Amino acid sequence: MRRSERIVRLTQTLLEQPYRLLSLTDMAEKLESAKSSLSEDLGIIRDVLQKEELGTLETQAGAAGGVRFIPGVPEQQALRFVYEMSQMLSDPERILPGGYLYMSDLLGRSDVLDWAGRIFAHIFSTAGAEYILTVETKGIPLAVSVARYLHIPTVVVRRDNRVTEGSAVSINYVSGSRRIQTMSLSRRSLPERSSVLLIDDFMKAGGTAKAMIDLMKEFKAEVVGVGVFMSTSEPVVKMLDQYVALTVLTHVDEIKKEIRVEPGVFQNLIHKEDANG
Amino acid sequence: MRRSERIVRLTQTLLEQPYRLLSLTDMAEKLESAKSSLSEDLGIIRDVLQKEELGTLETQAGAAGGVRFIPGVPEQQALRFVYEMSQMLSDPERILPGGYLYMSDLLGRSDVLDWAGRIFAHIFSTAGAEYILTVETKGIPLAVSVARYLHIPTVVVRRDNRVTEGSAVSINYVSGSRRIQTMSLSRRSLPERSSVLLIDDFMKAGGTAKAMIDLMKEFKAEVVGVGVFMSTSEPVVKMLDQYVALTVLTHVDEIKKEIRVEPGVFQNLIHKEDANG
Repeated sequence: MRRSERIVRLTQTLLEQPYRLLSLTDMAEKLESAKSSLSEDLGIIRDVLQKEELGTLETQAGAAGGVRFIPGVPEQQALRFVYEMSQMLSDPERILPGGYLYMSDLLGRSDVLDWAGRIFAHIFSTAGAEYILTVETKGIPLAVSVARYLHIPTVVVRRDNRVTEGSAVSINYVSGSRRIQTMSLSRRSLPERSSVLLIDDFMKAGGTAKAMIDLMKEFKAEVVGVGVFMSTSEPVVKMLDQYVALTVLTHVDEIKKEIRVEPGVFQNLIHKEDANG
Repeated sequence: MRRSERIVRLTQTLLEQPYRLLSLTDMAEKLESAKSSLSEDLGIIRDVLQKEELGTLETQAGAAGGVRFIPGVPEQQALRFVYEMSQMLSDPERILPGGYLYMSDLLGRSDVLDWAGRIFAHIFSTAGAEYILTVETKGIPLAVSVARYLHIPTVVVRRDNRVTEGSAVSINYVSGSRRIQTMSLSRRSLPERSSVLLIDDFMKAGGTAKAMIDLMKEFKAEVVGVGVFMSTSEPVVKMLDQYVALTVLTHVDEIKKEIRVEPGVFQNLIHKEDANG
């Protein structure tokens, strides 16, 4: 097989399977090539990925060794994406009753999900999450996208206790609309003592996220990070300390039809990770 | 830029953006290369993709021309995937009260979603769908994955009429559990006269899918296909004629703890598409 053909195969195999450790021996067999040639090819791929900030290749030596693709985020493109999202969201036509915002169209677009998923995966790449946790319904597509880039499973908490998946843990909480709500998760959905990353579409006071954190205590799970597509600047004090928001709703007036959405403060997170990586 | 580096960049750019028409002029500029060199590179990439049944590159000539990646499915690997899913699902521990099946773990795994999404995208690649339609909650991850490979948006129908997204269309229907249920979709979620592909996790009699088709009539939309991760062999006559199921639940006995899941009949669909493509 020619080098250029091998490089297509290797690039395809690696990029389609982020974070998965792929055996060099298996790849050499599949491509009918010597491991030494593969190593050179992988060097070329790694150089291009790093130069373009698209990620890197991690090599592990030894019998169980191999290579895996760690996705990155080109900083300028990520900032442009979030800026563009903020602009699109700052459209008075998006204002919904109660000061909420219509954003299902954006969170249904595959390119938006890809970018947002990639950014969160990058920010939380070293957090050690074993599961992505979200609560139905609107956060699910984003959660699935983050999970894809981190190559870990998604677990969806239900908003009712009609769960038909065996024994479940339910908790009550007060949501942003000040109603008492229920959320529940079946025992078999999540092994005890897991590390989870919370992903959701929207956060106001943080009541829902706080309830998810409380629910996780029942599973003896550790929440290693919280990421939302949009948070609100008010209330300033949320029910949880640390979270990352891609965009922030800083002003909305239903009567005057005014709205302002700004990029969140996460640039340093992207940059810091790059410096470490 | 060396050919091998260009090939990494091109493979990455194309494979990460299925179905998106990418301008050759833009790519030549970005890679600081002549269009003629790019054409040769694209030829190499196309050959490898086709040989491995991973898809193909479609070139469009002219000023607005460019190239796009149409994902394919290696037939043997797709069959192996569905066979493996059937085996994993044929586990008595998965039987839930009411003859339902626990499969949230599988539908939360990113590799499972990738494969299933890719297979459905391939089967329905020529159907002309503009939107993927699903109903909350369990079908959403799969719908998002299919949408990613077809590069079209996902629209999620809600199971209640608490929709807070402006004027909505609601319909009542009788579900598999013989209860009267409601589903609704806000007007702004889907433009009238769209072509939609229905994706869901599970189908028994087809009541939910039928209700989604009825709902689509209110949007003057055309349903160009229906795909489910699992259907049941009983009842034989469903409430809709045509659908594609990756797996079929052929036998379940809650008392005796017996269960049998088999691959669905879709092989000819994969193969036919390949022959046409």
